[in-house]
This record gives sequence, C-alpha cells and structure tokens, in this order.
Amino acid sequence: MISVVLLGAGNVAIHLYKAFSNSENITITQWYNRTRASISSYANDVEITDNLDDLKEADIYIMAVSDDSIEQLSKDLPFTNRIVAHTSGSVSMHDLDKKNKIAVFYPLQTFSKDADIDFTEVPICVETYEKENLQLLKNLAKAVGCKPHKITTEQRQTLHLAAVFVNNFTNQLYRIGHEICETKNIEFEILQPLIQETARKIKNMSPYMAQTGPAKRNDKKTIKRQLKLMEKEEHQSIYKLLTASIKRTHNVSSYRPKSTKN
Amino acid sequence: MISVVLLGAGNVAIHLYKAFSNSENITITQWYNRTRASISSYANDVEITDNLDDLKEADIYIMAVSDDSIEQLSKDLPFTNRIVAHTSGSVSMHDLDKKNKIAVFYPLQTFSKDADIDFTEVPICVETYEKENLQLLKNLAKAVGCKPHKITTEQRQTLHLAAVFVNNFTNQLYRIGHEICETKNIEFEILQPLIQETARKIKNMSPYMAQTGPAKRNDKKTIKRQLKLMEKEEHQSIYKLLTASIKRTHNVSSYRPKSTKN
Repeated sequence: MISVVLLGAGNVAIHLYKAFSNSENITITQWYNRTRASISSYANDVEITDNLDDLKEADIYIMAVSDDSIEQLSKDLPFTNRIVAHTSGSVSMHDLDKKNKIAVFYPLQTFSKDADIDFTEVPICVETYEKENLQLLKNLAKAVGCKPHKITTEQRQTLHLAAVFVNNFTNQLYRIGHEICETKNIEFEILQPLIQETARKIKNMSPYMAQTGPAKRNDKKTIKRQLKLMEKEEHQSIYKLLTASIKRTHNVSSYRPKSTKN
Repeated sequence: MISVVLLGAGNVAIHLYKAFSNSENITITQWYNRTRASISSYANDVEITDNLDDLKEADIYIMAVSDDSIEQLSKDLPFTNRIVAHTSGSVSMHDLDKKNKIAVFYPLQTFSKDADIDFTEVPICVETYEKENLQLLKNLAKAVGCKPHKITTEQRQTLHLAAVFVNNFTNQLYRIGHEICETKNIEFEILQPLIQETARKIKNMSPYMAQTGPAKRNDKKTIKRQLKLMEKEEHQSIYKLLTASIKRTHNVSSYRPKSTKN
C-alpha cells in the first residue's frame, strides 16, 4: 500500500485523485489545496486541508499544481527528507526544494475537467534525483494501471514539446475545421469519422507513410483553389506553412534547385 | 440490386471496390483502368478492362480517378444519358461532360493503400445535376453501409478544405512530433495515447472547449522555453503561428489594444 498526499486542485490533480481513489494499492492520506472550497465537495471521501502545517506523513507528496507555483510550494512545505514529486511536463526537477527527496511524476495525457480518462492508457514519465526512490514512483504508476517510463529531464521537456504539437496544435486544427464548416452551414460532425481515422491510422503506420492529400501529391490546382476559398488570413497562413512543411517532408517541392539533380 | 462500373485504380477506387464487393445489394459489372496491370490481380473476381469501348451498361459509373483526369475521361466515355459520378472532394460536378447524367459520390475519408476502412463510418457526400438521380446515389451509399449527405458543390469544396486541416495537416503535426521525439531518442509510441485521446475527446466536446496547454493558458515561460528547444526553424515557425492562433481563438493575447477594453 502506497500512501499519498495530493496537492493542488486543477485538472491533473482531479484526474489523479480519481485514479488514486480507484486503486486498491493506494491510500490518499490527505488532499491539500490553498483554497479549501475547490475540493470541499470531496470532504466526505478524503481528508482535505488548506493548511500546509497540517500535512501528515505519507510515502509520497504529489504536487499537481501550476508550473509557476511549483518552486514556491516546494519551499513552503514544512518538512524535510520526504519524497516530493511535481507533475509538470516542462518544469525542471531541480526547481523543487532539495530539502526533500525530489522527483517527477508526469502523466503524458490531456486532462479536461469534463472528459473521463482511461488511466491504463496513460504513460507516466518518472524521474528521481536519488536512484533509490525510483521504484516507489514506478510502483505508484503501476498501482493506477499505468506504464511508467524512466526518462531524463531533457527527454521529458522534449516530449512535452512534441505533445504540444500532437495535442494542442492538432486540437486547434480541429477548431479551424469547425470554423470553416460553420461558414457554409455544414455540421462539424461530418468530419468526425475522418478525424478518428486520421488518429487511428498511425497506430499501425508511421505519420510519414500515412500522409495523403493535395500537398503530398503536389496538386497545385487544388492548393490554389483552396487558398482562394479561405476567408480568414490566419487560416491561409497556416495552410501555406503546413502545405510547405508537407512538401518538404515528402520532397515534392517544385522549387528544388537544378543543381541537386543531374 | 445496383449495378456499378468502377473506373480508376487509386486508393479510393480500391477501397470502393472492396466496399462494393462486400455489399449484397451491389453488382460490380466491370472495373476499368487505362492500365490493365494495376487491376489484373482482381481478374478472377470481377470483369476487368482497359478499353472504354468495351464498357457495359450499368446503373451508375463511378469515376474514382485523379482530379486532373476527370474532365477528359468523362468526355471519352463512348455513351450518353447514363449516370456518371466522380469521387473528388474539390472538382466541380460541372467538369463532367453533360452528355451523361452527372453526379458526385464523395467519400469523406482518408484512404491509404495499406489501411483497411470501416465503410459504415464513412460519410458520403452526394450531389446530382438532375434531382431524379439523387435516390440512386443515396441508395448506393446505403448499400455499402454509409450515411449519405446531400450537399452543394460549395459545401463539398468547403468540407474538403476543412478535411485538409483535420486530416493532412494534423497528420503532419504527428510527423513533426515524431521528428522531435527522434532528436532525443524517444519512442514516438509514447505519444500514442495522447494522440488517440485528443481525437476521442472531441466526440463529446467542441474543439474550443477541449483546448488545453501553454498557448491557451498564455504560459509565456513555457512558450519561450519550448521555442528555444526546437532545432528546426520550420518547427519554430509552425509553433509560433499555431500558438498565436490558439491565443486569438481564446482571446488570451497580451497584445490586446487598450481601446477594446474599458
């Protein structure tokens, strides 16, 4: 049994709370948030507090707070020599105060308030300053059904960057698709099967192999026609940049200098 | 029973051939391609030909050929007054020679040679010049288990544009994620659950509501750090443009002119 004190009340904290509660191998000793009201609805199920001085002893303290709060909160902890992990993709482990045994427990997933997550599908990136604490982090990941991945700070920050591309930026492309549909009174729903298939396809195929469409085919007529169809300059800029990117990836640009071919 | 002559041998043609063959309500009368070799492996299952003069009578002729070939092939057809549909997202129905009854049968999906498609999930956008032919196109869509959507040329071209954003451009973001992972020897596989969840999430939530991440939070520190982390200028340009796009969508830019708020 692993005892955990959870700190924070954002999307990640709430999803971790649910995953920890559902695990037979985890006890949530306490849930801390500086504003009690944010977690008071859970008061019947778990001990909650807004006072750091009340924090009880536990195997690990999981700080699921905003990136900007991590450093200060780790300084404010009124104890030493315990395992304290943050959950951020981009903050250095060394921003944590070294009076405690510092670590990272980064779930590589997108967490929204209203979307339930199947935690068994979430990779957990773990990092520790002292090697002997690694097993506890791995066990905590496994206790919620996740696969732990030991990675370095640099790898974690790189993964977080890649995640911004495949998650936040992809979602913005969905948003633009939605906007474009709305201009002609088309239901966005009609694009759903295509969106799902685009994601499904790369389970068995590299994104390089999976590419199709006008840019990959260097279909200048369609590209020209589509550029005219867009009403927003912002959409045009994104269209041009990503079309050029696909052309470079697949080496289909017509502007290759003659010298490269003989 | 609907009799179909299929023309073409690209990805769309091959997927349509499979879907038509699997339907109890469709007979494939013939499969035409100008190069016999491309479809000769199917000769035991269906009558194949590379000669337009050999084309037999059928309820509908489905031209799943490249956009650039549609107009000429429709002119070359040696018959009149039959229903002829192309399958393109962007070509006007009126590029088809009006000696026949022209139509469009556009499956809104991404087709790769090696990825099997569940056709029951594919929306088929149908368009006809003469109203009385609409029912046959709808029936053909239903016969392969698809949902038909009657749309206008303008709506189809708009959908095709939106599809480029949510499919081709999204896939290129996956590719960039892959490239970024490779720079630090991280397996792309670790991003798979995030990619699948990003797509899954918008089944029940608008892309606007589903957005998360540094741009949405206007987290300048992370954005600055990530811009430094990228080795390719192309990735940086895409990062900047999509970050700005998310900020505009969610109204989180710090550069809002004072006059807009009082």
